[in-house]
Amino acid sequence: MPQLYSYAALAEKFRAGESSPSRELDRRIALFHELEPRLKSFVHVDLDAARAAAATSDQRWRARQPLSPIDGMPIGIKDIIETYDMPTGQGTPVWEGTQTRRDAASVQALREAGAVIFGKTTTTEYASTEPLHSTTNPHDPARTAGGSSSGSAAAVGAGILPAALGTQVVGSTLRPASYCGCVGFKPTFGALNRSGSFDHLSQSCLGILAASPEDAWHVASAIASRVGGDPGHPGLNGPLLPPPPHKPHRLAVVETAGWTKASEGARQALHGARTRLRDLGIETIDRRADADIEALEVALVDATPVTFRIFEWELVWPLGTYARLHGDKLTEAMHKRLASARTMSLDDYRTALARRAAIRARHAFVGARYDALLLLGATGAAPSGLAWTGDPALNIPASLLGAPAVALPLLRDGPMPLGLQLIGLPDHDDALMATADWVWRHYQRG
Amino acid sequence: MPQLYSYAALAEKFRAGESSPSRELDRRIALFHELEPRLKSFVHVDLDAARAAAATSDQRWRARQPLSPIDGMPIGIKDIIETYDMPTGQGTPVWEGTQTRRDAASVQALREAGAVIFGKTTTTEYASTEPLHSTTNPHDPARTAGGSSSGSAAAVGAGILPAALGTQVVGSTLRPASYCGCVGFKPTFGALNRSGSFDHLSQSCLGILAASPEDAWHVASAIASRVGGDPGHPGLNGPLLPPPPHKPHRLAVVETAGWTKASEGARQALHGARTRLRDLGIETIDRRADADIEALEVALVDATPVTFRIFEWELVWPLGTYARLHGDKLTEAMHKRLASARTMSLDDYRTALARRAAIRARHAFVGARYDALLLLGATGAAPSGLAWTGDPALNIPASLLGAPAVALPLLRDGPMPLGLQLIGLPDHDDALMATADWVWRHYQRG
Repeated sequence: MPQLYSYAALAEKFRAGESSPSRELDRRIALFHELEPRLKSFVHVDLDAARAAAATSDQRWRARQPLSPIDGMPIGIKDIIETYDMPTGQGTPVWEGTQTRRDAASVQALREAGAVIFGKTTTTEYASTEPLHSTTNPHDPARTAGGSSSGSAAAVGAGILPAALGTQVVGSTLRPASYCGCVGFKPTFGALNRSGSFDHLSQSCLGILAASPEDAWHVASAIASRVGGDPGHPGLNGPLLPPPPHKPHRLAVVETAGWTKASEGARQALHGARTRLRDLGIETIDRRADADIEALEVALVDATPVTFRIFEWELVWPLGTYARLHGDKLTEAMHKRLASARTMSLDDYRTALARRAAIRARHAFVGARYDALLLLGATGAAPSGLAWTGDPALNIPASLLGAPAVALPLLRDGPMPLGLQLIGLPDHDDALMATADWVWRHYQRG
Repeated sequence: MPQLYSYAALAEKFRAGESSPSRELDRRIALFHELEPRLKSFVHVDLDAARAAAATSDQRWRARQPLSPIDGMPIGIKDIIETYDMPTGQGTPVWEGTQTRRDAASVQALREAGAVIFGKTTTTEYASTEPLHSTTNPHDPARTAGGSSSGSAAAVGAGILPAALGTQVVGSTLRPASYCGCVGFKPTFGALNRSGSFDHLSQSCLGILAASPEDAWHVASAIASRVGGDPGHPGLNGPLLPPPPHKPHRLAVVETAGWTKASEGARQALHGARTRLRDLGIETIDRRADADIEALEVALVDATPVTFRIFEWELVWPLGTYARLHGDKLTEAMHKRLASARTMSLDDYRTALARRAAIRARHAFVGARYDALLLLGATGAAPSGLAWTGDPALNIPASLLGAPAVALPLLRDGPMPLGLQLIGLPDHDDALMATADWVWRHYQRG
């Protein structure tokens, strides 16, 4: 298992002069040279620019004036997010090498916080289902890293980076985090400004892959405090520094439609997690013991078709223009998705939105009575082969609910890592993170 | 006064073979050649492509199979909206000539509806306050056309086009419509999909400049039925064809903070309008006669500062990245706006959003009791000179409320046209349009 080093933990060493962002970066670059030929997690890196940025960060730490807790942090940017100094390729040959001549809001904020933009990480075609890059899993090169934030999860899971930006509209942050053994944080819908990122869907969310919950929070709050959330949204709720770990009392176990697809190993892992949490003094209550949870389970039964229905209508554009202008470079899967979308009317879309609103209301009702929902981070270990990025069934609920979710790399399915997922209430990202951090710190001890 | 020809009225002639989209286009092109040297309303036209598109439309009308009621309609596209075959310059030398290689959602929909993309119309710098093109008013070349949808309003007001796309975040559709003597329609926030347009703010809205309310509705419904509203929004509410004109019974007159800035001529024009409406059997009730209207007036007193507060925070990006990378090509006004935005925190923004929500609640309360709000379309005639696009004070309420609004060119301030504005309730665009169309049809008769 690669060791993941939290960047937040280095601040004291930087202050004491025992290390520096440059030294830390050199260690990461050595790992990059060693692992990247196998991982294929980046489409573009600029190591000279990264070294130069780290050197200016060294000076700020030496002067005890870091711009933020993540000053000097090397970070990867999913290749659908605009960067003025690196191309933005959207995982497709159509846009490969495209220079958009500006930074996305998140990248602007990260630079202002002193972070070091290490490179652009691979994504599936248009951050959707088709992997056109052959990114591999850091735990087994014969397996997928998941998607669509494939390179971000692989690079963080391999220990090359302490954090990277991903996005999620269906399962694109939590699933690759689960597969690659790193922390995944998908905030409340709208909590982090995604302007300047090629993801405009109504469940699209900037997500963070990180070595620890603390690192994930630092990155999220560095963005929100500087450029806010999506326009019109209140932005990430919570303090600038990570909220103190908070022991949860009651967690609501939800199986969701994904449970029937879960591997035997994954099911065993969740049973084990419930035992471990009980030993830590935390109640885990499921549908058999609470009628409200049962009602939420019933509401979530068609989470997957409702999500894909919404998602497809919202892809009439841009798939319509891509198909017409660059159709020969669009995969068959995307042509099929567009064809399916073309059978929908605006009224069909409204019906799906109304269904989503009803499911969210059900979650609000249950969520208020528990510290979080508890579920698997994925249906099992990363599947073998690189042609499929895995089943998103267990990642869809958080996306559909617009709710914050964290995947913690605490479980195993056979030889592979597997995430334990917690889902909070929308706009209560701080409460969820406090819970997740407590579980993270106590789960493996004792 | 230029005569504005509604495109919707031509359908019967097309069906009867008495005219054709190509003949209609030729007439418009002749007018373009005559007026454009003075108007400067376009940054790019492609007349050959327009003629070719009109010719295919001729065939469809001949075969009695038009793709939509606007099949063959020549339309202008504000130059912040992406078009695959024409550059998108955002009104600034930085982006002039930029090819984004795709169509915005609205443009994709218009092409699918058979519309003829005539050209890209001028806009102020980044669709904000600074006019870097010298577009003139069709009624007086020494006056501004207004902004930011300057070219769209000028071309439609001059009779060159029956319709053009604009956008509005503060006053960018209703004000130039008022100044240029054409119909302006700013739908409910989110009602028309603005994906692929460089306007991401939380009050930004695709708007339509048109020769008649009918034409405006046809364009709006052609877009909404094909690509919907903004992702997550229900999309334009109403029928595919223009809703039948509906006689209003009671209109709530609101002065708003703009009244104190209105010219004497504009004030007289509103008094005259109230008399004319009374003669038509419509009650117009103001703050002196209804305490709820008075309460709305009080709530709207700081509509302008609240709007600019929201707007400025939302411009931290992209102005932050533009200033850093292309700062020498950003006007002083934009540098100042960014500096002001930099003094804000996320908490300040949340406070402004909460204030906006409170004002909207007040509108919902009053709006439910009246057919529409009635106010001036602008503070007066278009100002002289081309350096300033005019005062948006009377256009801000509809933007801040997220409500649909129509400006009808029914009033005059001295020698110049002036709009009469109606504001409806959010997601009741059809009801507002039915009211506006009735007023439009009856106001000038008898």
